[in-house]
Amino acid sequence: MDLYDRISELSKRRGIFFPSFEIYGGLGGFYDYGPIGATLKRNIENKWMKIFVLKEGMVEIESTMILPSVVFEASGHIAHFTDILTKCTACNETYRTDHVIKEAGVEIREGLKAEELDKVIRKKDVQCPKCGGELEKSSPFNLMFKVEIGPYWRSITGYGRPEAAQAQFVDFKRVYSSERERLPLGIAQVGRCLRNEIAPRKGPIRLREFTIIDYEIFFDPDDSSYSRIELLEDQKLRILTSKEQTSGTNRIKEVTVKEALKKGLIGNEIQAYFLALAVRFMKELGVPPEKQRLREQLPEEKAHYSKQTFDQEVWLERWGWTEISGSAYRTNYDVSRHMTYSGKDLRVFKAFDKPKKVRKIIQKPNRELIQEDFGEETKMIIKLLSKSDPQVVKQNFEERGVYELPGPTSLKLYPKHVDFEIIETEATGKYFIPHVIEPSFGVDRVFYSILEYAYTEKGGRVILRIPRDIAPIKALVFPLVNKDGIPELAEKVYNLIIEKDIVARYDGSGSIGKRYARADEIGVPICITIDYDSLKDNTVTLRDLDTWSQIRMKITDLPEKLHRYIKGKKEFNDLGTPYNKNST
Amino acid sequence: MDLYDRISELSKRRGIFFPSFEIYGGLGGFYDYGPIGATLKRNIENKWMKIFVLKEGMVEIESTMILPSVVFEASGHIAHFTDILTKCTACNETYRTDHVIKEAGVEIREGLKAEELDKVIRKKDVQCPKCGGELEKSSPFNLMFKVEIGPYWRSITGYGRPEAAQAQFVDFKRVYSSERERLPLGIAQVGRCLRNEIAPRKGPIRLREFTIIDYEIFFDPDDSSYSRIELLEDQKLRILTSKEQTSGTNRIKEVTVKEALKKGLIGNEIQAYFLALAVRFMKELGVPPEKQRLREQLPEEKAHYSKQTFDQEVWLERWGWTEISGSAYRTNYDVSRHMTYSGKDLRVFKAFDKPKKVRKIIQKPNRELIQEDFGEETKMIIKLLSKSDPQVVKQNFEERGVYELPGPTSLKLYPKHVDFEIIETEATGKYFIPHVIEPSFGVDRVFYSILEYAYTEKGGRVILRIPRDIAPIKALVFPLVNKDGIPELAEKVYNLIIEKDIVARYDGSGSIGKRYARADEIGVPICITIDYDSLKDNTVTLRDLDTWSQIRMKITDLPEKLHRYIKGKKEFNDLGTPYNKNST
Repeated sequence: MDLYDRISELSKRRGIFFPSFEIYGGLGGFYDYGPIGATLKRNIENKWMKIFVLKEGMVEIESTMILPSVVFEASGHIAHFTDILTKCTACNETYRTDHVIKEAGVEIREGLKAEELDKVIRKKDVQCPKCGGELEKSSPFNLMFKVEIGPYWRSITGYGRPEAAQAQFVDFKRVYSSERERLPLGIAQVGRCLRNEIAPRKGPIRLREFTIIDYEIFFDPDDSSYSRIELLEDQKLRILTSKEQTSGTNRIKEVTVKEALKKGLIGNEIQAYFLALAVRFMKELGVPPEKQRLREQLPEEKAHYSKQTFDQEVWLERWGWTEISGSAYRTNYDVSRHMTYSGKDLRVFKAFDKPKKVRKIIQKPNRELIQEDFGEETKMIIKLLSKSDPQVVKQNFEERGVYELPGPTSLKLYPKHVDFEIIETEATGKYFIPHVIEPSFGVDRVFYSILEYAYTEKGGRVILRIPRDIAPIKALVFPLVNKDGIPELAEKVYNLIIEKDIVARYDGSGSIGKRYARADEIGVPICITIDYDSLKDNTVTLRDLDTWSQIRMKITDLPEKLHRYIKGKKEFNDLGTPYNKNST
Repeated sequence: MDLYDRISELSKRRGIFFPSFEIYGGLGGFYDYGPIGATLKRNIENKWMKIFVLKEGMVEIESTMILPSVVFEASGHIAHFTDILTKCTACNETYRTDHVIKEAGVEIREGLKAEELDKVIRKKDVQCPKCGGELEKSSPFNLMFKVEIGPYWRSITGYGRPEAAQAQFVDFKRVYSSERERLPLGIAQVGRCLRNEIAPRKGPIRLREFTIIDYEIFFDPDDSSYSRIELLEDQKLRILTSKEQTSGTNRIKEVTVKEALKKGLIGNEIQAYFLALAVRFMKELGVPPEKQRLREQLPEEKAHYSKQTFDQEVWLERWGWTEISGSAYRTNYDVSRHMTYSGKDLRVFKAFDKPKKVRKIIQKPNRELIQEDFGEETKMIIKLLSKSDPQVVKQNFEERGVYELPGPTSLKLYPKHVDFEIIETEATGKYFIPHVIEPSFGVDRVFYSILEYAYTEKGGRVILRIPRDIAPIKALVFPLVNKDGIPELAEKVYNLIIEKDIVARYDGSGSIGKRYARADEIGVPICITIDYDSLKDNTVTLRDLDTWSQIRMKITDLPEKLHRYIKGKKEFNDLGTPYNKNST
C-alpha cells in the first residue's frame, strides 16, 4: 500500500474523507468529509481567511454558485472551458485525447487543438487502451454543469461555476464602493465549484465537486507596490522558471522575495508578496519549504491575457509535483470583458495630485448612417450613446464588432455608426480598469497535502501530526477508571474545556494505551487523564501528541493554558511539571 | 419605505447583501453577500456550530451538493418535491396554482392536488392576475435542478440537493462507526442548496440558492432521553399547537420545556431540548422571545412519516410570522428508505444488559419457484439471499413489490420466491433503524431576521445593533488627525489588535463624527480613537455602539480586554474609566 492508500484506509475508518453515496456504489470525483475531515477543512479555511484576508485588511464575499450563461460568455468559459475528448468506436469508452496519447507513451506539448491531437493519434497509431479499438475524431466538451432556471417553457440557461471567481469581478463596483474606493483591494471567496470531469481517477486530487478559494486582488496598474512586502522580503522562494523548463535543465532557483523581484523572476510586488505568503501558509500547515516549489507556467499553458502565472506545487508520493494553488496576473481581462458584455462602466477614478495633460477618446455619432438604419429612433440613439463611455464603445467594436446600447431597447450599433477622435485635454484624475492578481487555492488538495505530511508511523501505530492550531479535536479527556468518582471529575474537566470553546471529546472506554492510540490516529494534540491523584490534589496528566511526553497540571490552569497552547504560542513542556507515570 | 426597503438600501450601500449579477440585470431568487454580509453569515454559522455541535459533543460532515438521482428517488424528492403550476393561455405568465388562487382572495387548505386546485379555479372563475386570461390545466413541476454527470452519450442524471440533508443518512453507517457507535448522535451539515422556485419575489426570504443547516439527530426509539435536558427545562417556550390553529382560536401557550413535555405538547425530549436551544439561539442573535413562536404543523402540512413537526417562526415587518427553522421528528423514514434502495443494512446493534426473549423474522427461500424462474442460478441466488437481512427483504416486498439481490448481478426476487416465519428466540441485543429528530435552519432567513431586529434609527442615523459576538467588524481605529505622529501610533494600535485575530479596520478619513456614523451603520461594537493625549500617556478612547458612551483605556490593555468584551463577557463601562471628551 502506498501512502495514498494508507491515508484512504485511515480516512474511511476514522471519518476523515470517503467516497460520496458509497452505499449506492459511489461515483468518480465525488468525496464527502466525515466529522474529523469536515472540521479540519473548516479550520484550514478559517486559517486561510485569517492570514490572507483579516491580517491584510482585505475582504471576503459570498456569491451564488449558479450564474446565468451571460456571465460565462463574458468570462470566456463557454468558449474555452473545454476538454478535448475522443471515444472508442468499439467499446464506447471515453478519454481525454491528450491523456490517451500520453498513456500510450507519446510525448506532446500542452495546448494542442483537437485536429492536432487527432493527427498525433493517426500518426502514432494510438488505440483504445482498454480494447485496442479505433478512436473517434476528437471534439471539445464543455466541463461546466448546465442547469435550466425556471420552468422549461421560459427558462434561462445557467451554469454551476467552475471556480469561485467571477462574482468578485461582477460585483466589483459594489464592493469597491462599500470599501470606500481603496486600492489595492483583495476580494476573496471560498466556494464550492463544479467541473464535469470525464473520468476522474485521482481521488481527492481531481474532483467533480470541490472547494476553491479565489482571491482577486485589484490594483492600479501604475502602482503595484505593496506596503507589507517588507515583512516577507527576506523569505526564500524556490522558483522553477519557464526558461528552465523549456531548456530542459529544470533547475530550481532558490532566491529571496527581494531577489526574485530584482531579477525579474516575478514581475509584480503584489504577486510576489502573496506567493511568499502562500509558501509560508503551506509551511505552517506542515509542508516543508523544500517539498514546495513555484513553477512558472509556460507561454503555451497560461491564458493569453495573463502576464505571468505560477503554480504552487507540493510533492505528493503518488502524484509527484502537484499544483495546490496558482497565482495569475490576469491584467484587466475579466473586468474589461464584463464591461463589454454588461455595457456598464466598471472603471474606477483616481484623482491626480494636480491636474495633468492627458489624451482622451471622444466619440462622434455618424448621424446620417444612424438615420438611414434607425429612422425616427435616431434622436434616442444619440442620447443613449452619449451616456456610454467612448472607451467601452470602441472596445466593443474592436472585440465583438458590435455595441449594444444600454437599457431595455437592445439596439445594436456597428463600427460605421460611430467615429472616434483622440484629443489632448487637462484632467484632474484618471479613469482606469483595475488590474488583478489572482491567488487561487484548491482547498481539497491543500487538505490532502496536509494529511500526507502529517501521516507518520511509530511502532506500528499511526500518528497524524496535524499542526495543533488546525487539529479538528484539540483535547481528549480520559477517566483512568470508570469508578470511585473519577468519571464525575473527568466530566467536570471536559465541561470546563468545552465552555472555553475548545473542541474536546470524552473517552472512557478501553485501556489508556488504546485511547492514546485512537487519539494519535486523528491528530489530537493533548490527552488529559484524570486519576486517583486528581481527586486528592486537583491536578491532571497531559500527554503530547508529538513527543508522547507527559506533564502534570492544575485543573484550574487547564482552560487558559490549553487555549494558548493550541494557538501555537507555547512549548508543551512549559505547560506544567514533567510526569512519568503511565507512559505509553 | 418599509423596514425591508430600508435594510435593502443600507445593504446595497454598505456591502451587506445585494442582487447577484446585478450588472446583468439580476435574476429573482439570487442574492450575493458583500464583505459585511459574508463575514456576518460566517459568524452566524460558526456560532451555530459552537452551540449546537461543539457544546453538545456532536459532529458535522461536509458532503457534495450534487447527488445521483437514486438518492433522491430514495428520499422521495423525485416523486414529491414539486410545486403545482399553471400558466396563462393568453400571456404565458406562470404561477403556482395555490398562490394565484389565494391572490384572488379565495381561501383554500394546504396540500390540495392539481385536479382539486383546478376545480377551485373553474368554480371561482380565477383568472390570470396580469392580463385576465384563462389559466391552463395545472401540473406538478419538480423544483430540483437537474444536471448530467459525464459526457452526454453516457451520462448519469444527478440533482442539486434541495436541502443540506440526505448525506447524513447516506453516510450514516460510516459516521456512526467512526464515532464509536454512540447514540444519540447528531450529524450536522451547513450547505448551499438549490431550488428552482418559479417566481421568487420575497428578497432573501425565498431564494433559488441558499444555505441550510440540516442537523440529523439519530437515536434509539426506545430511549429518547437527553441528559442535558435539565440545563434548559425551565426555559419558556411559546407554542401554537395544531389544535389551536384548526379551532381558529390561535392562542399561544406559554409553557416551560418541562411542562411542554409533561402535557405532551412536545412528544420527545430530544426534540424539546433542541427547540429550546433554537429559541435561545435566536434570542442571543437579537430576536426577543416574544417575537418568536413555535408553530406545530397541521396534519395536512407535515410529511406522512413525520410524528410531529414545528416551525420556529420570527415576526418580520413585511412578511409577518416567517419560518426560520423547523424541527421534524422524521421517525426511521430516511434511513429505512436508503436501506431499501441501496440494499445495504443500515441498522445498528445494541447489546441488552442480559439476554432477552425476542421475536425474530426468518426467511425461507421457495426453492421450487426459484428453480423454475432462474434455473442453474438457483444455488447462487440462495447464497446471496442468505446474506440479506430478512427484515430488509420483507420490507422491500412490502414497499416495492420486489427485492434486488446485492452484488453486480441485479437479479430480482418477487414475494412468491421467499416465505417468512416469525420465531421466538433468545437475543443478546437488538438490531434497529435509528429514529431521527431534524432541526433545520434557513441561514439566509436567520441572517435577515438579525438585521431586522438590529436595525434602529437614532437622530436620523442608522445604528445596526448586531450582537457583538457575531459583529463582522469588531473595532475601528481612528487617528484623531492625520499628523503629528498620531497616524503612526494609530497604525500600531491597529496592528496590535489584528495580531490578536480581532477583525478591525483603520479609518483615517472625514470627521470623527462621520466615522462614528459609518461605524454605527454596520454595527461595529467598538471605535478606538487615538489623540494627542495618547501620545503622552499611551491611552485611547473607546466608544460603545449601543450607548455611545466613552471610556479611556491603556493601549497595552486593549487586545486582552477587547477580546473578552467581544465574547460578551464584560460590560462596556467596566472596560476602563469614563470619558466625556469628543462625544458625538
